[in-house]
Amino acid sequence: MASPQATSSSLAPLTSAYDSILALTPYQTGKPVEELTREYGVSDVVKLASNENPLGCSPHVTLAITEQLGQLARYPDGNGYYLKQALADFNRVDVEQITLGNGSNDLLDLLARGFVSCDDTIVYSQYAFVVYSMLAKIQGATGIEVPTPRFGHDLTAMRQAVADHPNTKVVFIANPNNPTGTQLGQKELREFVTSVPASVLVVLDEAYIEYSPESNNRALLDEFDNVVIVRTFSKAYGLAGLRVGYAISSVPVADLLNRIRQPFNVSRVALAAAAAALADQDFIEATRLSNAEQMRWLEKQFDALGLGFIKSHANFIMVKFEVEMEDINAISIHQALLEQGVIVRPLAAYGLPNWLRITVGLAEDNLRLIDTLRSILTED
Amino acid sequence: MASPQATSSSLAPLTSAYDSILALTPYQTGKPVEELTREYGVSDVVKLASNENPLGCSPHVTLAITEQLGQLARYPDGNGYYLKQALADFNRVDVEQITLGNGSNDLLDLLARGFVSCDDTIVYSQYAFVVYSMLAKIQGATGIEVPTPRFGHDLTAMRQAVADHPNTKVVFIANPNNPTGTQLGQKELREFVTSVPASVLVVLDEAYIEYSPESNNRALLDEFDNVVIVRTFSKAYGLAGLRVGYAISSVPVADLLNRIRQPFNVSRVALAAAAAALADQDFIEATRLSNAEQMRWLEKQFDALGLGFIKSHANFIMVKFEVEMEDINAISIHQALLEQGVIVRPLAAYGLPNWLRITVGLAEDNLRLIDTLRSILTED
Repeated sequence: MASPQATSSSLAPLTSAYDSILALTPYQTGKPVEELTREYGVSDVVKLASNENPLGCSPHVTLAITEQLGQLARYPDGNGYYLKQALADFNRVDVEQITLGNGSNDLLDLLARGFVSCDDTIVYSQYAFVVYSMLAKIQGATGIEVPTPRFGHDLTAMRQAVADHPNTKVVFIANPNNPTGTQLGQKELREFVTSVPASVLVVLDEAYIEYSPESNNRALLDEFDNVVIVRTFSKAYGLAGLRVGYAISSVPVADLLNRIRQPFNVSRVALAAAAAALADQDFIEATRLSNAEQMRWLEKQFDALGLGFIKSHANFIMVKFEVEMEDINAISIHQALLEQGVIVRPLAAYGLPNWLRITVGLAEDNLRLIDTLRSILTED
Repeated sequence: MASPQATSSSLAPLTSAYDSILALTPYQTGKPVEELTREYGVSDVVKLASNENPLGCSPHVTLAITEQLGQLARYPDGNGYYLKQALADFNRVDVEQITLGNGSNDLLDLLARGFVSCDDTIVYSQYAFVVYSMLAKIQGATGIEVPTPRFGHDLTAMRQAVADHPNTKVVFIANPNNPTGTQLGQKELREFVTSVPASVLVVLDEAYIEYSPESNNRALLDEFDNVVIVRTFSKAYGLAGLRVGYAISSVPVADLLNRIRQPFNVSRVALAAAAAALADQDFIEATRLSNAEQMRWLEKQFDALGLGFIKSHANFIMVKFEVEMEDINAISIHQALLEQGVIVRPLAAYGLPNWLRITVGLAEDNLRLIDTLRSILTED
């Protein structure tokens, strides 16, 4: 067989569309539980690495999926009629303003493909979701990462970056931000949108909005045709395994995204599950309360352990491990936690090698994390 | 609200990446059963429009999905470990040669994004899957549609098109072809691959391969690093509702596709269902036998009705409606069938306004189709 011997450097004479694609580091996902079990033989694993909802999802989802089991051979409704109607009602927008995606990642992807060509620029913040910089590389475009002094977004510097790069087509802003958990004020965000040219699409990635309802910038859509809000069912709604997200935008932007998306980008099961999940706002309220309570408990424990952290507005928290002892750092602690069955997220890929991002779990998960951390920190 | 008033022509000052995107006609999906019920108030609908498997899917799929219901809040394994292993074993290739996708459409999309920039060319045949020409437009690339005299692929003309366009990066060939159902011989296809430069990716879209095992060109992968085979679980495997497809290629091509795909492009439920479906080859054999038997029956009925058709190697058949009577043509017959609850596919978007594509259904579906057709043709 010729193929398996080939290496990734041997693509010539085949050539990739853009050299930047070959330089791309694939996205590192949170380690799946099954993989930890395979690699370390650890059972009873606690995963606090991917900001999943530890409560699961609404109990109504199971019935919604079961009703689809006899129809799996049938293509989904490519227009997502019922889910789009429900989302339009929920967000008080017109159904033509909604675009559905295979997770919110699909929408970020479509926004880059639809609006960014190889001569263009994408602007985003340091310490923001790594997918933004990956999209610049995939499009063969220029990605401008704007430094931030305090883990949040420096909107003044971002405005300047847009002014400095007249080919800027998209600005990505996560609010609350991942992985830092920081949040922008509505006033400063509104000022930012007002200050950039109407030719620049401002994409507000609100993946964690349910944990921070005050971050909701839905109102900006009524004023600005260049604002896009991206949401997901993967976090508070607890449907990460199914892949559903959506964008709310002006009609022309939604029309363009719908032209270029894959005709059946959201599965039949995902459409039904998301509609059921959206209808159960009591579950979202319970999720928010549980997260807030456990977040307060974790903050106290990190204080007690003498660990610094960034105040978070989402369902995760970024903790600093720069201990004044040899051999103990975020990397070694991440590894030690893994070996004891606790998965958290290292942030070296985000330029934050001294930090770990920890998802807020159930009370017992968080207790296990803190007990394991304490034993690691005090043993050495 | 400013947004809903905007029209799709008012994207300025926002600008799409490529003008060709604005010229794009969105893919017309087969009309969903729910939509027909909404529009015409017809119940008891027979859908023979999307080449779905009328037998459904393997009964093992239900259990595989049920096992995932407690894990919906957890992201899928982004590497698709188990499914890729199973596919590698099934196809006797290395696991590093497999790329998973959200349906085979996702893989066609990734191949265009990874290998075709705005200065490049994509070559495909007249009367081939419309997504190929859409991908050229989305990439801002040049799409060359090669005329075919007899509904199949004119490989000599396609070779010439590649020679005439030195920027050709990808050739898409569906085998069996959709919507014509035609099939290419292994020898002529091998000659074609040999004749094009090694810098051109030859993508063999084998969506219907299970209905025509003799069309399997897996062997070409052992010789040519520029051949990619794309497969789907949406047709014979009966999982169109879940969205799973895969590509088999040389390792460098798979490595590149895996860099640019969305990290969780295949859902947890789809991964589990596809693995269960792949393991049940008895179901595929039953599907093939049922399809062959019903195809023979349909051919006889079309002959009896005096309707021309193209000999098909897949699970659908293209039938000509150019009746020597006023007011009766493919468009009016499509509409008359719809009103009586039978959905088939018009082919005007494929440049075939006098033809309808009809999916082979169960015996009772096909009987209903033929009875309805006969009444339409004899009444007027």
